[in-house]
Amino acid sequence: MRGAILRAPRDVRVEQREDPKIEQPTDAVIRLAATCVCGSDLWPYRGIEAVTDPAPMGHEYIGTVKEVGSDVTTIKPGQFVVGSFFASDNTCPICQAGYQSRCVNAELMGTIGTQAEYARIPLADGTLVATPGMPADDLLPSLLAASDVLGTGWFAAVAAEAGPGRTVAVVGDGAVGLLGVLAAHQLGAERIIAMSRHESRQQLALEFGATDIVTERGDEGVATIKKLTDGLGAHSVIEAVGTQESMMQAIRSTRPGGHVGYVGVAHDVQLPGDELFFSAIHLHGGPAPVRRFLPELIDQIWQRHIDPGKVFDLTLPLEEAAEGYAAMDERRAIKTLLRP
Amino acid sequence: MRGAILRAPRDVRVEQREDPKIEQPTDAVIRLAATCVCGSDLWPYRGIEAVTDPAPMGHEYIGTVKEVGSDVTTIKPGQFVVGSFFASDNTCPICQAGYQSRCVNAELMGTIGTQAEYARIPLADGTLVATPGMPADDLLPSLLAASDVLGTGWFAAVAAEAGPGRTVAVVGDGAVGLLGVLAAHQLGAERIIAMSRHESRQQLALEFGATDIVTERGDEGVATIKKLTDGLGAHSVIEAVGTQESMMQAIRSTRPGGHVGYVGVAHDVQLPGDELFFSAIHLHGGPAPVRRFLPELIDQIWQRHIDPGKVFDLTLPLEEAAEGYAAMDERRAIKTLLRP
Repeated sequence: MRGAILRAPRDVRVEQREDPKIEQPTDAVIRLAATCVCGSDLWPYRGIEAVTDPAPMGHEYIGTVKEVGSDVTTIKPGQFVVGSFFASDNTCPICQAGYQSRCVNAELMGTIGTQAEYARIPLADGTLVATPGMPADDLLPSLLAASDVLGTGWFAAVAAEAGPGRTVAVVGDGAVGLLGVLAAHQLGAERIIAMSRHESRQQLALEFGATDIVTERGDEGVATIKKLTDGLGAHSVIEAVGTQESMMQAIRSTRPGGHVGYVGVAHDVQLPGDELFFSAIHLHGGPAPVRRFLPELIDQIWQRHIDPGKVFDLTLPLEEAAEGYAAMDERRAIKTLLRP
Repeated sequence: MRGAILRAPRDVRVEQREDPKIEQPTDAVIRLAATCVCGSDLWPYRGIEAVTDPAPMGHEYIGTVKEVGSDVTTIKPGQFVVGSFFASDNTCPICQAGYQSRCVNAELMGTIGTQAEYARIPLADGTLVATPGMPADDLLPSLLAASDVLGTGWFAAVAAEAGPGRTVAVVGDGAVGLLGVLAAHQLGAERIIAMSRHESRQQLALEFGATDIVTERGDEGVATIKKLTDGLGAHSVIEAVGTQESMMQAIRSTRPGGHVGYVGVAHDVQLPGDELFFSAIHLHGGPAPVRRFLPELIDQIWQRHIDPGKVFDLTLPLEEAAEGYAAMDERRAIKTLLRP
């Protein structure tokens, strides 16, 4: 089969890869209907995360089940499925508590690489959620978004306790931040402040339910959020970047007793204990347990209540993955969908 | 009046201080029935926090109202009252959300210094809670505990979401940690693991409801907590020390999705963003909003359901404050009560 491989920083190639097969009796193999490039794929692409061996890329996926292992009981060949970037058994105490991304048997899909024609999905019964039927073609982008960026933005909004009566600020205008806006809106937040200086992203934020746009960042951004909230800070802040600046911007934009939901994968972040202590905020986040939200998100997409697929503003054949990465790296695209 | 002054590290003296008086129309002046030395007083006592000018000491207090300012409406002279270490108006949006320690008009009682015969209490209506009547003498230690260490331990247990079905680990065996054990027990926790290597403190932890004692600390302590919890970690961890080691011990002892409630005042703590991210825990804490819990805690003490005053294992006249500090510094006493 064909699949994307990162050979060195900024060197993504679509190459011949070995066809995946059932390795464990709990595996499934799916044929991908669509996959995509994640903001987190840009860390190794930019060389900020080291690339040593050639690395299969991609961890977002939707598609049709081709084959299942002998222990798989609920997922059947022919079903259309959505899964998350962590395979999980969905039965251990950590899964049962809603933290499937930290399942005691979790496997990271990124090491499998779903920017390909086929993918092996470990722990298929726990990981995959079948759609009610074969989806219309125009639903594919939204279902694919559920696989990571929607689920992650949704988790961030839940972790930030966005809801009625709350003012939510969103740090980060990538796909996850934008879908954090959508999630906060769906969760009933009263006011949603998107922090963005890119016009196309501001527009999408407004479409997704943002009520205010703030273009300042860092300390100036914090000052503007305070000014918009009677000097107190937002009740809920979504952090969707993962840098020292973005984390501190999120913490400082939150009122005492408020909640930060952070989902940007932390890179070189050190949180000062004394400032965190006196901030009196709640801090929760990490790798989003997308599996927790998949049934609800698929349902909302199926009923066309939400259209998170709008974050894909570039669609390319899988063979052109390299251009898909470059467009996101150069911020010419918010998110690239790849069709195998 | 007489009051304790810290002149230099390890140099606490009880000296003549000016009698406090009403300075703002929202003030009260109280005559102290009892006051005490806090674990956090040991930071400047040990010179870890710099002492520049002679500093009045103490922020815990109970006593009888002597006088009130012209704007005070609910607190009356003659009432017996308990307050917290932060004066708060109890009406601003932050107070109304339960974070009185970060009230927009908060004043720190530590700068006033309650290890004295009298104390001025700012924002008396918001800060002070009157007891149902004059307390019996044997209730004074428990009511005094409510002023800080009980309220702080209680907040830590609430922040850690201690409750039915939960395993709670407690890092720190000072008065706050021990009262975190008591709080977790009152909140219905199933299992409470106290981390302590001091026999008298272990005994008190068991009296307060601990079900297990762990003597290891640091990475070994984490390993023992994991062993006791099927390899997963505790649901809820109370952190009541404030060092890098204790914070990391707390974070690493918590299962994914679990909750750390931290109340040890952070000193030279830096939290690594990547480890925190992948831990997937909830982190909440800071200066405890004791005022939120005071009515309930006073009620439980008044009805003799709880006896948090047991943390005072040394009672001295105010004049002997220096010995009270030394005994706590040398861990000869858990907590020293001072009688003016």
